[in-house]
Amino acid sequence: MKTSKILFFLAVMFLSGSAFAQTSKMNPADFHGATADKKSYKVVYQLNTDDEKVIKATMRNINNALDDPRLKGKLEVELVVHGGGVAVFKKDQPYEAQLKELQGKGVILAECENTMRERKISRDELFDFISYVPSGNGEIIIRQQQGWAIVHP
Amino acid sequence: MKTSKILFFLAVMFLSGSAFAQTSKMNPADFHGATADKKSYKVVYQLNTDDEKVIKATMRNINNALDDPRLKGKLEVELVVHGGGVAVFKKDQPYEAQLKELQGKGVILAECENTMRERKISRDELFDFISYVPSGNGEIIIRQQQGWAIVHP
Amino acid sequence: MKTSKILFFLAVMFLSGSAFAQTSKMNPADFHGATADKKSYKVVYQLNTDDEKVIKATMRNINNALDDPRLKGKLEVELVVHGGGVAVFKKDQPYEAQLKELQGKGVILAECENTMRERKISRDELFDFISYVPSGNGEIIIRQQQGWAIVHP
Repeated sequence: MKTSKILFFLAVMFLSGSAFAQTSKMNPADFHGATADKKSYKVVYQLNTDDEKVIKATMRNINNALDDPRLKGKLEVELVVHGGGVAVFKKDQPYEAQLKELQGKGVILAECENTMRERKISRDELFDFISYVPSGNGEIIIRQQQGWAIVHP
Repeated sequence: MKTSKILFFLAVMFLSGSAFAQTSKMNPADFHGATADKKSYKVVYQLNTDDEKVIKATMRNINNALDDPRLKGKLEVELVVHGGGVAVFKKDQPYEAQLKELQGKGVILAECENTMRERKISRDELFDFISYVPSGNGEIIIRQQQGWAIVHP
Repeated sequence: MKTSKILFFLAVMFLSGSAFAQTSKMNPADFHGATADKKSYKVVYQLNTDDEKVIKATMRNINNALDDPRLKGKLEVELVVHGGGVAVFKKDQPYEAQLKELQGKGVILAECENTMRERKISRDELFDFISYVPSGNGEIIIRQQQGWAIVHP
């Protein structure tokens, strides 16, 4: 009796072992991405360069995340801008329409106050519909420790 | 009686619904950053380039995070250096004073041992007050899974 | 009696206080990296540029993480490719052998379908052994909120 139980137990272990091997060697064509089974998702996007390519990619990336069928309607986004990234918020730059579109989708637009001081930028130079945070780095850290994801395009 | 209860329930739902709509459409001027209500915060900074601009930005960013009024006195930082980032730790580079200042604030300065082997760098070439970790990538992964935030300037 | 208890309590607090001060001012030579005491680790690597240096660094970084003695045999990796990063999966690029080696080690190779549409790339142009996800950004966000670490080399 005891031996049969042990044999049965070993058989189960062996079978589940090979099942595990099979999933880890699954057919790549069968993988279509992680499943979003949470009720809501939160992400901080970090922008810290005035490189036009990166600025545009960051806004495109945020839109792609918001449009991902898995996250549609349940993703909260905060764009944290520091260092050279401040360019995106400058009135003399061509991003007003895209920023307002993002804001219309609920995206928080947050500029680092440290950057403002370090670069001697006045709030008058930036769009008046943005928010300010004490430091972009602090914001990114606090958000992650509140459970937000981070993406740095 | 029952109907009144249902009406009351619907009214509550309606009111909380509009309250939610209001917070999600809050005035950007009213947002001043996330609240740091945890007792302590931990963050890994990743540096993997010898680009002087990025090296300097990384050290400035760490100082800004440590000085953020929300995190003051409760932020632990580890600077994980790998790849080209090793430049920051080289004796012939001009970062000794800034690194010692960071270390004085409790920042762990960690160099990747893989990089040392791959680039055939001897420990004699680097400042003697730094620490070494088996791999910078492993360190970044383990730290995150221990609950640390990650910032890659 | 009570006074002696209070004195004892204060002494313990004082001693543990100085012990804490000692650990926070530990000798850097005594730090050899975080301890990996979890049973398994998971990480998403983000690749979003066609810069050959970054592509190669990303693959080297993944191998270094898999080989880190602390993570050996217990690290699951997914490489999420979007934007310019799609270059790594193109048949006319020289990365087939390295990608297959990574896949042999269990690394999921995931291409962003948004990028495919935006850049009008046909699946025929990419290696047939990769996987596709609705959006690279969505994938990175969902994975992090499932508890995966993120590394962006």
